Amino acid sequence: MKRHNLLITSDLVGSSDVRRLRRFANVYRSSELEEKTLADRLRETDALLISFWPEFLTDETLRRMKRLRFIQGILVGVDHIPFVTLPRKVVVCSNAGAYSLEVGEHAFGLLLSAAKRVVDTHNSVARGKTDFKEFRGTSDDILVLQGKTLGVVGYGGIGAVVAGLGRSFGMDVIALSRSRRSGRGVKFVRGRGALTSLLAGSDAVVLALPLTNLTEGMIGAKELSAAKRDAVLVNISRGDIVNQAALYEHLRLKPSFRYATDVWWYEGGRETLVTDYPFTSLPNFVGTPHISGPTAVASGRPVRMAVENTLRYLRGLRPKNVVKRSEYYRSIVL
Amino acid sequence: MKRHNLLITSDLVGSSDVRRLRRFANVYRSSELEEKTLADRLRETDALLISFWPEFLTDETLRRMKRLRFIQGILVGVDHIPFVTLPRKVVVCSNAGAYSLEVGEHAFGLLLSAAKRVVDTHNSVARGKTDFKEFRGTSDDILVLQGKTLGVVGYGGIGAVVAGLGRSFGMDVIALSRSRRSGRGVKFVRGRGALTSLLAGSDAVVLALPLTNLTEGMIGAKELSAAKRDAVLVNISRGDIVNQAALYEHLRLKPSFRYATDVWWYEGGRETLVTDYPFTSLPNFVGTPHISGPTAVASGRPVRMAVENTLRYLRGLRPKNVVKRSEYYRSIVL
Repeated sequence: MKRHNLLITSDLVGSSDVRRLRRFANVYRSSELEEKTLADRLRETDALLISFWPEFLTDETLRRMKRLRFIQGILVGVDHIPFVTLPRKVVVCSNAGAYSLEVGEHAFGLLLSAAKRVVDTHNSVARGKTDFKEFRGTSDDILVLQGKTLGVVGYGGIGAVVAGLGRSFGMDVIALSRSRRSGRGVKFVRGRGALTSLLAGSDAVVLALPLTNLTEGMIGAKELSAAKRDAVLVNISRGDIVNQAALYEHLRLKPSFRYATDVWWYEGGRETLVTDYPFTSLPNFVGTPHISGPTAVASGRPVRMAVENTLRYLRGLRPKNVVKRSEYYRSIVL
Repeated sequence: MKRHNLLITSDLVGSSDVRRLRRFANVYRSSELEEKTLADRLRETDALLISFWPEFLTDETLRRMKRLRFIQGILVGVDHIPFVTLPRKVVVCSNAGAYSLEVGEHAFGLLLSAAKRVVDTHNSVARGKTDFKEFRGTSDDILVLQGKTLGVVGYGGIGAVVAGLGRSFGMDVIALSRSRRSGRGVKFVRGRGALTSLLAGSDAVVLALPLTNLTEGMIGAKELSAAKRDAVLVNISRGDIVNQAALYEHLRLKPSFRYATDVWWYEGGRETLVTDYPFTSLPNFVGTPHISGPTAVASGRPVRMAVENTLRYLRGLRPKNVVKRSEYYRSIVL
């Protein structure tokens, strides 16, 4: 078996993992190499283990990496990888499932924060609204989950966790999935019109699907207008699934509709907390600064799973979570 | 069977309920009577159906209600009732269980809001902290519920709902209860030292017990110091269970410890959003303005249950949820 050359560009991978990987490959860390040596190594590199796509891997550099065959991500999403430049023979693996538990919990934290109006009423009290009478009527917009319907868009690891928690709260769960057709107590919808009918029938909706050329901007003005007037929409996947301008307009015009997110829109290929519209000035917007993922990283699971999958590749086994590349030929500039 | 005289002081009771009650009693509404007529009626009244204790029922008025034998509350708590003045022969019934579902959900909304740092990170972004780098380390204080321990103090209807939701999130649940000894997947603790050991062993604690002379101020400096450094304490019962000064000091000195509440302290016998200390200026304090209860009222369940129990009394049956009066001889001024 030929010996692989693996380059690790993430500091999250610890030394014990490096030792395990060394049994099947020559392993280098980009952070430990001088610029000149790194350039030499890149020409020999056939496998990459990365977190966010490293800046030194420009399109030009990538074109010189003739031997590259495999990329394993530590993040769950792979939308940051420049697929357009990447030769077809390179297999890209996501880290699907590695963040499901923590991100699913965070999704429910956002859902309940918006459903129970925690952020806006807390801030009203903090700003000096201290007469209980002023909060009369607040409860009209409080969503009691029991007996209501939860729509889950995308039924991967995170979607399944969210659906399970929804069931625990006594919710009926509808899920939109391309591939999954069964899940305990979950009604699956698919095909043309499925998204609109899911939105129309759900009191709370969680977006838990990857950002691809099929999903970018999939929630626009039309979809928002199909949703219930007082629904709670939670985004735990990627900001760009939702059309920013359409969302702002919808939130402004429908004060009972709520959007709660941990993910933000891309600007120049990078997620940014700076938005085109003043979302945080709206009481029906809740946003956390993409903090759901790091919690999972802290558990060690994402690195462990990414290392395991890299080992599968190095040992000549079929790696898991191979990405359907055709869906990622997006035009985001990196 | 003698005909009862029932006075209703809450506008929440609808006309169809009044019709049902009229089959067994002469029914009057305080809001529909002139002052003079009301004074006459009060002398004949033997049963009261109330929400919050009405202001016109002063101690002096109460002393003149020689025939009063029964009070049914629509609220779950009865701590607003002036037990000191109330003759011993008056039976007081709470509305325990009527709010469990909605208040239990709200408790979990507060728990997750604080556990996932939704409010403080949202507000940081809103105030212009828009560089992701500034949020590095935030995840250290994010509590992942799965595999952690939830302590439930008070295991009535609300406590049971909270415990069930905790189990759904994969938490181990410990409960402190005087009367209950079993609950699915719940470990019960009791007796001397039980509260301290529950606090010491829990990553999140929910207070779900009534305010009585046994529970007032039960969470003070000693109890707070027994809790985990980075625990989340949720109060869904009454503000005065927690010592205000001790809590403020604890939150100020332990920034990883969090307190999330829907209930506030009493001032002159009334709950108020005005606090003695600037809690809302602390990032580790989350407070909603007592909005969990009204959501339950909107369901119609609290009024329905209170009316059913009043009917039991009027029909000569043993009413449910009779309050142990000795525990309510508190010194709050109404």
